[in-house]
This record gives sequence, structure tokens and C-alpha cells, in this order.
Amino acid sequence: MTMGLRCVAIPVCGRILQRTFSLHTAHLRKDMENFFQLVKNIVPALTEKKHKGQDGRIGIVGGCQEYTGAPYFAAMSALKAGADLSYVFCAREAAPVIKSYSPELIVHPVLDSPNAVQEVKKWLPRLHALVVGPGLGRDDLLLKNVKGILEASKARDIPIVIDADGLWLIAQEPALIQGYQKAILTPNHMEFSRLWEAVVSSPVDSSDDHASVLRLSQALGNVTVVQKGEHDLISDGQQGPAHSWWPPGVRARSQGSATTRPFRSMAAPPPPLT
Amino acid sequence: MTMGLRCVAIPVCGRILQRTFSLHTAHLRKDMENFFQLVKNIVPALTEKKHKGQDGRIGIVGGCQEYTGAPYFAAMSALKAGADLSYVFCAREAAPVIKSYSPELIVHPVLDSPNAVQEVKKWLPRLHALVVGPGLGRDDLLLKNVKGILEASKARDIPIVIDADGLWLIAQEPALIQGYQKAILTPNHMEFSRLWEAVVSSPVDSSDDHASVLRLSQALGNVTVVQKGEHDLISDGQQGPAHSWWPPGVRARSQGSATTRPFRSMAAPPPPLT
Repeated sequence: MTMGLRCVAIPVCGRILQRTFSLHTAHLRKDMENFFQLVKNIVPALTEKKHKGQDGRIGIVGGCQEYTGAPYFAAMSALKAGADLSYVFCAREAAPVIKSYSPELIVHPVLDSPNAVQEVKKWLPRLHALVVGPGLGRDDLLLKNVKGILEASKARDIPIVIDADGLWLIAQEPALIQGYQKAILTPNHMEFSRLWEAVVSSPVDSSDDHASVLRLSQALGNVTVVQKGEHDLISDGQQGPAHSWWPPGVRARSQGSATTRPFRSMAAPPPPLT
Repeated sequence: MTMGLRCVAIPVCGRILQRTFSLHTAHLRKDMENFFQLVKNIVPALTEKKHKGQDGRIGIVGGCQEYTGAPYFAAMSALKAGADLSYVFCAREAAPVIKSYSPELIVHPVLDSPNAVQEVKKWLPRLHALVVGPGLGRDDLLLKNVKGILEASKARDIPIVIDADGLWLIAQEPALIQGYQKAILTPNHMEFSRLWEAVVSSPVDSSDDHASVLRLSQALGNVTVVQKGEHDLISDGQQGPAHSWWPPGVRARSQGSATTRPFRSMAAPPPPLT
């Protein structure tokens, strides 16, 4: 089902490369080639040997009355990065809208139901990774259900990427994710400050972003932190942050909900041979 | 999120230029180059230095049982002109339809709710400019709520573009906008006549559109008036109307709800550094 999407990724990168050759220097060209190689490493090769699901089954937890676009982009970009199946678990009212964006998605209108946690738990054995937060909003009922889903996912050792209002929930209750090293948090500037205030007692040292990212990761018990911005900074608390590199002319990650996309595939464990 | 949209604007202008070269004279080519420069001045440059929202957060008030296309076009064209976020405040029934047109939009189904004004007021502190009227219709409840939203927006000194049935409301109650110099009205021929009759006692002098536009603006207390037509006329009551210039072969602004689009970005104040 996602083959068409996956086929698109490589030619698009090729076009970016071509355009960049004519606009930029040899140095940038080398960077672009590295970027192209990175994309190739992430996107699973097409093969006739596998069956649907083996290259990734990803769950997105988000989507409420106001926000339907973010979970759609999160789910679709998982497919575009090579996953086979994207499931969206959202509020009832958001479901028909998210479904209508694309027939590629499997959308469960359960997130505001009284038995939301049980409904999502049924699907957890199938999922390789979970993304929590895009379009979640801050409704009390939804956040309470998401807490239950986080606990159930941790109990199954599932990698979890947390973004947007998922990070707002973590800032309210850092214990939810404390020490869970299969979690990746992807805060922008504001979300980073909020997490820092919740977890570290002293004020953020804005003159040294590298040290701050390392320290927040350590304070959370080596949860991976990806601080989005002009240059994204990534740390797992073991090492000082590494920079990410993105093609020139691309909007900063902090300007949109695009960052969780590749992380979803990277966070997923090697697909089981089932 | 709007990266793709923004990237499209410049190449499209380039194609219009190319087509025009082969069809028209050197004089027109110069006009086109000026138009191209104007577009470049309006569309914010891509940068890695900003975060989401800094290049414009625009609210559209409109969308009812019958009309869902106009608020969609208004909201999407704000994004295409470079804004980061577009919010649509519409009637409940219109919301899933407008949402499903594009995941880029944030759609609030509040305009026919009993507490519509309060619901929209919560979002006003985030907005740089408001567009009132596309797809609004003339339902009494919606118009009453829009009156409250106009008052609340004026109290916050937010620039407001008023079009379509928003202008019908102003023709019923000119006092709503009287003297608010951050308002831009964009009437077509019929809407202009209706406003004139409501505000000026004498009949319109149809032989001198320039004088009429200047006079209506002055009578409204220097509200900016953009009379859409074969040649759009613009006046803030201080100066005689200036002509706008548009590429040949483009529909007159009076033929569709396209005029509000660039005005939304132009009306917005410089984005705050937050």
C-alpha cells in the first residue's frame, strides 16, 4: 500500500541534490551527498521478500477537535520514511477528517472514549514505535488517557517519540518518562524551556545550548532529547549533543511538526521476522 | 509545515513572467518585473532563525452551512503569501469540510455556538491579523457573534480585513468599523454601492470612481477602502486612490474572493520576537 510513497522519497532527494548543485558550493554538495546517504540508510529498500508490516508499524497518538493536520503529517511521514502501516489514535470528532486526508491511514476514533487505554492496548503488540503528541491538545480527558497509554507502552518496551502537547504532559509529570531510555523527546525552544523548568531547578543557561541539552537528558535519566531549532541538538545523556544537518532552504524544525518523522523509523527496533 | 506552499510562490511568478514575455510588450514586461518584486517583498524569506508563528498567525472568521470554499481559499492564500499559521473560525457544520480540504489549517467549529465570542477571544492574543467575512453568510446568530468578535478585535488593536458578507454587516452597522484605521474593506461594485448608501447620503457619482473611493474612506473615518474592479482603487482617505496593478489575463478581483489574500499579510504588523 505504501510502495508508491516510498518510491517517491529517493527521486525527491535527487531533485534536491540537482538543484543544490547549481546553487551552492562543493562543500554543500558534499553535505548533500551525506544527507542523501542518510536518507538511503533510513528508508528500507523495496523487496519482494517481505510482507506488509515487516518494515514498520507505527502508531500516532493525537488529533482532537481543533487539530487534525499534525497527526496526519506525522502518520504520513512515517509512511514516506518507509514504514508499512500508520495507525492514528485520535478523538472521535477528529477521525473522519483525518481519514479523509488520506486512504493510506488507519484511524481509530478512541482517544476520548471511556475505555481509550484498553482500546489502544489491544493494538500495542502490533506496533514497532509510538508517536505521542501531534495535535493532541490539552483537554484533561485526553491527557489522562494518554498517561495510561504511555504506561502501557512502557510496560511493553515500545520506543516512544514525544512531541507537541505530549511534551506539555511530560512537563506536568516528568515521572511519566523518567529513566525510560526508549523515549525520544523533540522539544522546540518553548517546549525545551518548559521541560527544563519542570525537571532542573536552576534557570536555563541560554549561552550554552549544548550543555543544556546534555543536562536535561541526564536529568530525565538518559531519555534522548532532540532540541529543535536553527541547528537541532541531540543528546542521550551519555555524549555531548551532536548537530543534525539539514539541506539549505528548508524551514527550521521548530517551525513545524516535521521532526518526529524520521525519528519514528529510527526509533523502531529491527522488525521481527513475523 | 507551509514550506512547500511558500516555495511554490516564486517559481509560479517566474512562469507568469515567462508567459508574459512571449505575449506582451516591453512595457508590460517592466510591469511584471515590478509585480514580481512586490511579491518578493511580501513573501517572507525562508530562514533557519525563526520558529513557527513568527512569520504570521492569521485568523479567518467565516464558513457556514452553505459556504465552505471562501474561508478555505482565504486561509490557504494567507499561507501561500508566507504566513506560518492560519486559523479558521466557522460554524460547526462547516468545520469538518473545511478541515478536510487541507491538513494545513486549524479549524475551530465555534461561530454558531452560544459562547462564540469568548471562544474566539481566547485566540486573539495569538493573531497578527483577522479576515472577517469569507463564506460568512447572513444568518442572524452568526452576524451577532461576528459583531462581538469585531469589538473584541478592535479592543486589541488587531488589523482587520473585511470582505463579502462581513461588508454586508458593516453596511447594516457602519459604526462597527467607523474610525478604526486598522481596518481594510474590500468591496466589489455591489458591496461598494451598499456601503455608500449606508454611509453617504448623496447618490454615488459613477463617473468618478476615484472621488467616490476617497470620499467613502473619509466618511468611514479613514478606514482603508479597496474597491475591486477592472482596476482596483485603494484609498485611506488621506490620499486620492492609487491604482493596483495585476498581471494581464487574471480575473478581476471583483470576480472572486481573492483580494483579501495579500492584504492579510500586508495588514499584519511586524511579527513580535516571541
